[in-house]
Amino acid sequence: MSATRARRRRGGAEDGPTRAVDYRRLRNPFPPVPVFSEDRVEAIHAAALTVLEELGMKVLLPEARTIFRAGGAIVDDASQMVRIGRDMVAAAVASAPRSFPLRAGSRDRDLVMELGTLAIQSGAGAPHATDLLRGRRPATLSDYRELTRLTQHFDVLHMLNPLVEPQDVPVHLRHYAVTEAQLTLSDKFPFVFSRGTPQVADCFEMIRDFRGLTEAEFAAKPHCYTIINTNSPRQLDVPMAQGLIDFAKAGQMSVVTPFCLMGAMAPVTVAGALTLSHAEALAAIALTQLVRPGAPVCYGAFASNVDMKSGAPAFGTPEEVKANLGAGQLARKLGLPWRCATGSAANVNDAQAANETQMGAWGAVLAGATILIHGAGWLEGGLTVSYEKLITDLEVIQSFAELCAETPATDADIALDALREVQPGGHFFGCAHTMERYATAFYEPLVADWSNFGTWTERGAKDASERATGIWRRLIDEPPGFSPDPDRQAALAAFIVRRSAAGGAPPES
Amino acid sequence: MSATRARRRRGGAEDGPTRAVDYRRLRNPFPPVPVFSEDRVEAIHAAALTVLEELGMKVLLPEARTIFRAGGAIVDDASQMVRIGRDMVAAAVASAPRSFPLRAGSRDRDLVMELGTLAIQSGAGAPHATDLLRGRRPATLSDYRELTRLTQHFDVLHMLNPLVEPQDVPVHLRHYAVTEAQLTLSDKFPFVFSRGTPQVADCFEMIRDFRGLTEAEFAAKPHCYTIINTNSPRQLDVPMAQGLIDFAKAGQMSVVTPFCLMGAMAPVTVAGALTLSHAEALAAIALTQLVRPGAPVCYGAFASNVDMKSGAPAFGTPEEVKANLGAGQLARKLGLPWRCATGSAANVNDAQAANETQMGAWGAVLAGATILIHGAGWLEGGLTVSYEKLITDLEVIQSFAELCAETPATDADIALDALREVQPGGHFFGCAHTMERYATAFYEPLVADWSNFGTWTERGAKDASERATGIWRRLIDEPPGFSPDPDRQAALAAFIVRRSAAGGAPPES
Repeated sequence: MSATRARRRRGGAEDGPTRAVDYRRLRNPFPPVPVFSEDRVEAIHAAALTVLEELGMKVLLPEARTIFRAGGAIVDDASQMVRIGRDMVAAAVASAPRSFPLRAGSRDRDLVMELGTLAIQSGAGAPHATDLLRGRRPATLSDYRELTRLTQHFDVLHMLNPLVEPQDVPVHLRHYAVTEAQLTLSDKFPFVFSRGTPQVADCFEMIRDFRGLTEAEFAAKPHCYTIINTNSPRQLDVPMAQGLIDFAKAGQMSVVTPFCLMGAMAPVTVAGALTLSHAEALAAIALTQLVRPGAPVCYGAFASNVDMKSGAPAFGTPEEVKANLGAGQLARKLGLPWRCATGSAANVNDAQAANETQMGAWGAVLAGATILIHGAGWLEGGLTVSYEKLITDLEVIQSFAELCAETPATDADIALDALREVQPGGHFFGCAHTMERYATAFYEPLVADWSNFGTWTERGAKDASERATGIWRRLIDEPPGFSPDPDRQAALAAFIVRRSAAGGAPPES
Repeated sequence: MSATRARRRRGGAEDGPTRAVDYRRLRNPFPPVPVFSEDRVEAIHAAALTVLEELGMKVLLPEARTIFRAGGAIVDDASQMVRIGRDMVAAAVASAPRSFPLRAGSRDRDLVMELGTLAIQSGAGAPHATDLLRGRRPATLSDYRELTRLTQHFDVLHMLNPLVEPQDVPVHLRHYAVTEAQLTLSDKFPFVFSRGTPQVADCFEMIRDFRGLTEAEFAAKPHCYTIINTNSPRQLDVPMAQGLIDFAKAGQMSVVTPFCLMGAMAPVTVAGALTLSHAEALAAIALTQLVRPGAPVCYGAFASNVDMKSGAPAFGTPEEVKANLGAGQLARKLGLPWRCATGSAANVNDAQAANETQMGAWGAVLAGATILIHGAGWLEGGLTVSYEKLITDLEVIQSFAELCAETPATDADIALDALREVQPGGHFFGCAHTMERYATAFYEPLVADWSNFGTWTERGAKDASERATGIWRRLIDEPPGFSPDPDRQAALAAFIVRRSAAGGAPPES
């Protein structure tokens, strides 16, 4: 059965033959689900163009305003407002690439960004970490490194990301620590925070040298990416604008993500929030294309709602699902790869946490997202990454990966011979058709326990979170499955020592 | 805002204006997702016809074999095997109604069964009940009545069902107790177990009299339904065959559900399991149409996989999702309304339980199911209904109902005026567009807690299951929202006393 053994996926709980599903490169099998009629998609797009043309964006970085002005935008430096015409938007959408490769540390970790591909990330950007052994705490570099190891382990997590903020490392040195962790603990596609040019330049240099690339080779393809959040409504701050410029210049990928909570920083309606989000994303994309036509950029949307009584953010709601689906329609109108998200506002890894994250994830998958962010581990609306929730959510994410694989229905799969062999009221456990296939027929769960109540009780009546603790504890000690070049590793360490001694790189704001 | 206040849904946690989403009658908004090419759907259908024609079904009830023989099937009474030709299947599919109404106790609880409508049921048929206050126990009539009250409360649960088995009521009297509970505690569409003609006739009489119907009025439309499980592979037992006959004769609805666990009572492949399931469903549908052409019947499938190491059933797996999607293709080929399911093998209401039930539910919804069974509350692969899981799953089910509603995108929703009003970096909390809409803009969660970690901790750090306890406790004391006719209620009670004194109706097997 070489076909079914050909490719080992990592993620399952045990050794032995596993299934031939390639978790490393997914194509979304679901036809995208619309929530708006085509004429309403056009109306939202037209309204977003009106927003950019008549109202404009407040752009806090002078360099960005200069670039916009040179490109033909109407700029008022006193108010920092930039009004962007529809021609500039059209040109940007025309020059932004529809498809581009992402170059990771190993060729079998490379990805393609285009409508139809699906890359998944765990929860990102949390100030806290939590697990059942050590409790909830401000995140540390140790947490970041452990979570990076877990990210490396699971093939279904396709990109590295800023899992937690290592708060024990000063911000002017933090980018060294997280880049070193990403490069040495994982061969997946790394993330760089846009906290000003000095930090970004440091990170580019570390990645370039560690990957053994010339400047030209580095610039020829994206070797890392950043996330750009606008300050909704209609504002682009200094480090974010600088990030768009720096990444575009260097040919690296920006993922543009207006964060529009309906009723708070965006209109209370799905259509209104998406109009604002779309306008902001188009402004950011325009800046990248003014800097360098063809610069790799992802469209993005992160629109959910708030609790209108308390203002608390909510995730995995029906409104977020609808916003995801609508954002997908806008992304397809542009033809660009795009980033979508799920999340949970739960405070503990319970049924609410599971349901919210899965609900939003279905919204993103059915929306045809190219990148699904916060797919596993996110609690408290992103204030905490839970080790246990990372594991329990990965059961869902791995199930999505399974659904990306074909469901075979050859005559042999239809199994008339087995149906002839087994008599009425009998069973198929021992028939030849089953024996040939049983070892690889089904997805093997990561954390689900299917034993009966008696057996489960005898084994300690552990719930999914408690079982997840055992899983992540074992995995954080696993080798990363690749061997970084020792010379480059030493050179990276020396670079970090040298730059740290020289004062590091304070963030810009 | 009369439009948004026009229709109160029940299910939300509080009084006040609620949203104009009609939870009582859902139409599935998702385009059905295929897993097989059209030619493979034809191949599965053709293989199922071959199974029926060449191999046949073992039919244990002599009356059913007589009906099949009279209809033209090749019957061997010694082996009890019935071989069914493709002409008989084609005639049955042609005469089975594509669309029919279900008549409940109130007109606004009536339903329509056809491809495109969506009716949802909670978990059904469990021998045990569990909740955090009273623990796991053999289910009693009190549990059955409480769970019926909860089913009545939530508009998004569209039909009554055999939630738990009231094991404290002897089986020859149990149908009186459960029918009385259904009719007096709820005005939703009731369920009748097929445990032989005497019990079924009793139930028909109770429902007919309680609804105040003549025999002709009762027979003119379905006023109740039964679930028919085949004994896969290829066997139809006595009470199930009798149920198909009795319900068809009476014009009441049979929901045909082969229960095909891949690798156990069905082939290990999705395509093979569906071939068997499809053949068995067609045989059962054929029997209903031989009894009475045009008898209301639902196609159905319940195919999931087992753990091939232990034989334990699994639910909410990728294989179940694929089987659901494939079954939907077969149902659409027939053009019949159909029943699909989700479930969970978890032993406690944890992240596994939530994820499995939601995963399977998405499979059913994306498969275009007409009825989704076991949508809320099912634990242990159906051995237990959990009061808390009923509540936490209902959050997901209500979210599906929200997704059935249109996402408005009029110019007013696109909100250019609000976008003009709010300045860059500002917020939309107080703007006119928000003020006009905030009270009904968003789905209000049933059990989700979106408060921050500090507030949540101060309030007792309750997880979703613990919060769910408070919710079901409050709701089981709520009045059912309708007033049964006291005379009919008294007549029903008298009927039950009289029949019980006469010895009840022992089940047939």
